[in-house]
Amino acid sequence: MATNTRRRTLLLDAAIDLLAGRGARGLTFRAIDETAGTPIGTASNYFADRGELLAQVFDRIGARLAPDPEVLARLGRRRPSAKLFGDYMRDIVSRLTTERDVTLALFELRLEASRNPDVARLVRAWQGAGFSADVAFHTDAGLPGGRDEVALFHYALDGLILDRLTAPIDPATTTDHVIDRLVAGLFRDVHPALDTR
Amino acid sequence: MATNTRRRTLLLDAAIDLLAGRGARGLTFRAIDETAGTPIGTASNYFADRGELLAQVFDRIGARLAPDPEVLARLGRRRPSAKLFGDYMRDIVSRLTTERDVTLALFELRLEASRNPDVARLVRAWQGAGFSADVAFHTDAGLPGGRDEVALFHYALDGLILDRLTAPIDPATTTDHVIDRLVAGLFRDVHPALDTR
Repeated sequence: MATNTRRRTLLLDAAIDLLAGRGARGLTFRAIDETAGTPIGTASNYFADRGELLAQVFDRIGARLAPDPEVLARLGRRRPSAKLFGDYMRDIVSRLTTERDVTLALFELRLEASRNPDVARLVRAWQGAGFSADVAFHTDAGLPGGRDEVALFHYALDGLILDRLTAPIDPATTTDHVIDRLVAGLFRDVHPALDTR
Repeated sequence: MATNTRRRTLLLDAAIDLLAGRGARGLTFRAIDETAGTPIGTASNYFADRGELLAQVFDRIGARLAPDPEVLARLGRRRPSAKLFGDYMRDIVSRLTTERDVTLALFELRLEASRNPDVARLVRAWQGAGFSADVAFHTDAGLPGGRDEVALFHYALDGLILDRLTAPIDPATTTDHVIDRLVAGLFRDVHPALDTR
């Protein structure tokens, strides 16, 4: 069972590498086995069909992008403020850019959602659950703003990360500076007297 | 010559359809001919290699996403303000979401840039030229802010458009409302007394 779990993870990581490295059309059961170094037929033994494979790829993406509990605990001890929110955003961007292939795979799957209704269902579920969890976390943490602000940051950071992982338009400006500007701007409407320093 | 130009455009539009509909790996000379309905061999006659094809695909993308001169003229007669900037942003988002396949093709090419240095060169040139032109336009039009703000909107709108074209996290909120919030927030640092109504 432990061996099975390890092998399943190996196959799912190979699937993520293929999505990032070749795009959604490069993801075949055969290519997974070749990339994972498993005998041809292994991947199709582990996953009944492409839908099951992709559903588990999303779970694996979630596991690989999950926050470090120590970082969360440290941030969770601080007073809620826009500055704290900025540091949460920095942690998210850091995870997504460090796990470059996972993030590129996710972008691939999102584009695939535009052309394949089955993938669209999975992506909608993934994005929807992520957004709801982010809003709940935001509210529970007592951070300024709410659902609207979480959505705005979702858009802005997605665009920023896509830019930074591909062909940056403004590489001389640090990602930290961009996040600072977004935080300073996008919360003003909510709490005009908010501490953004 | 006119026939050649029309046929070249037909082939380039087929290439854009393929990028949007199948991803970068689905783009082959043969598939272009099949999609365009031209005899097999036509596309490879028109484009020396994949690099030349993609360079011309970018030109065609630029032509298809170009602003309507009448819209630009109408906006150009107004007093520069954050509100006017918002209307420029609305026009950009409207063009990109109306020309859905062109925009999806562009996202595909940007992801392809993460894995192929030749495509990366083309994407960098395209993104760089677009960003410089946007900054120059912004400055010439006397709009508030400058390079930094243009970059922030570039990120935020990219993320918003990707979201809206794939699996939206918050479909009940209108795109107009999101743009209003971004404009109201992201210019405050520059001109605190700016008219954002």
